[in-house]
Amino acid sequence: MENRVIVLVSGGMDSLVTAAIAAQESSTLAFLHLNYGQRTEGRELQAFNLIADHYQVESDFRKVIDLTFLQQIGGSSLTDRQMEVTHYHGEDTQIPTSYVPFRNTHIIAMAVSWAEVIGVEKIYIGAVFEDSSGYPDCRPSYYQAMNQLIKEGTKEGKIAVVTPIISMSKQQIVKKAVELSAPLEHSWSCYTDSRQACGVCDSCALRLRGFQQAGVVDPICYQQRPKYD
Amino acid sequence: MENRVIVLVSGGMDSLVTAAIAAQESSTLAFLHLNYGQRTEGRELQAFNLIADHYQVESDFRKVIDLTFLQQIGGSSLTDRQMEVTHYHGEDTQIPTSYVPFRNTHIIAMAVSWAEVIGVEKIYIGAVFEDSSGYPDCRPSYYQAMNQLIKEGTKEGKIAVVTPIISMSKQQIVKKAVELSAPLEHSWSCYTDSRQACGVCDSCALRLRGFQQAGVVDPICYQQRPKYD
Repeated sequence: MENRVIVLVSGGMDSLVTAAIAAQESSTLAFLHLNYGQRTEGRELQAFNLIADHYQVESDFRKVIDLTFLQQIGGSSLTDRQMEVTHYHGEDTQIPTSYVPFRNTHIIAMAVSWAEVIGVEKIYIGAVFEDSSGYPDCRPSYYQAMNQLIKEGTKEGKIAVVTPIISMSKQQIVKKAVELSAPLEHSWSCYTDSRQACGVCDSCALRLRGFQQAGVVDPICYQQRPKYD
Repeated sequence: MENRVIVLVSGGMDSLVTAAIAAQESSTLAFLHLNYGQRTEGRELQAFNLIADHYQVESDFRKVIDLTFLQQIGGSSLTDRQMEVTHYHGEDTQIPTSYVPFRNTHIIAMAVSWAEVIGVEKIYIGAVFEDSSGYPDCRPSYYQAMNQLIKEGTKEGKIAVVTPIISMSKQQIVKKAVELSAPLEHSWSCYTDSRQACGVCDSCALRLRGFQQAGVVDPICYQQRPKYD
């Protein structure tokens, strides 16, 4: 029996490493990418396809779904172009303006619907608790609740979401990427829409600090790289 | 403090009665309607607006969101126009072909995102367990799991989904509609896209049986009405 699994691939480093882990555990992958109207969609989609090429995902199992209806809800700088992106200012426990309310639930619901149609039982998502900038839907307890919901809300109740990197730091994620020969050069983490990553948004700052702590040079290009203490 | 609540209003009888109950419990309502590419969308949207007019819902708080991405997933006769609608054949415990995998999760996730943006803490949905044709996401245990997920996945964890008619039979729902003077003539339940309800699809059959058992005449017009034992 085919043992295909779905991987949610935004195109960022966390989803890249998650794909690399899924590729170790299953010989056939399905990649799902959600376009929810974020500023960086073009660049993320390019990363998605480069990563899918690397892991030889067949075209029938690369799915890009438009969730731009989230723009009709608003409440986030990632989807609402009127709001400014929060820059990184060291230890910040506030939920940043890039928060889309309940976003991961939309994303995972989509993966579960697709899983039920194509007969997949395992969905990989690169959620990370430690560096999650306070998003409530990156907590392990959220995923426990999600798996309970899936059990209750699907025909056979066999589908499960797995979060292989949820307990890792960005440093550990970089090391895992290197260990699994994941193509880090294809990933895109920046919250701004430019040819080169900005180096100063929350997401760039977390990524760069992870590389620095891991003692690895990030292979992508930056407009500027922040200094750390 | 304003005590606005959100009601998910498909335009069917169950959502109508749920709106009537919500109107008793809160003086200000917000209505959310989801277009997920069902055959009957035009007729349902008309019902939605008639019901919203009846309950004097302001235009800023009537939201219609396009979830037609569900068509990209397939797996249901309601969204996949190649599949035939299952007709009602008495006691049928099989999940009908009108099943959209995990559909209610998409719908509720949308309501929760909106609730967080507009500061609402209560979401009413007209889910019904008894006459649910085997949809797994109409079970009370599904809603318990959903409320746990919302608690874990939102900023303050204060939003809750309520299901005031989940334990009612269709007969009780008809009686409740009459008791609350809900405008039954505005509701639309049929799964086919015609000027008059077909009278033979699962949804018409369940509705008509409810009226018959309640001893009430359904005020909408039908092409035909089935005979019951």
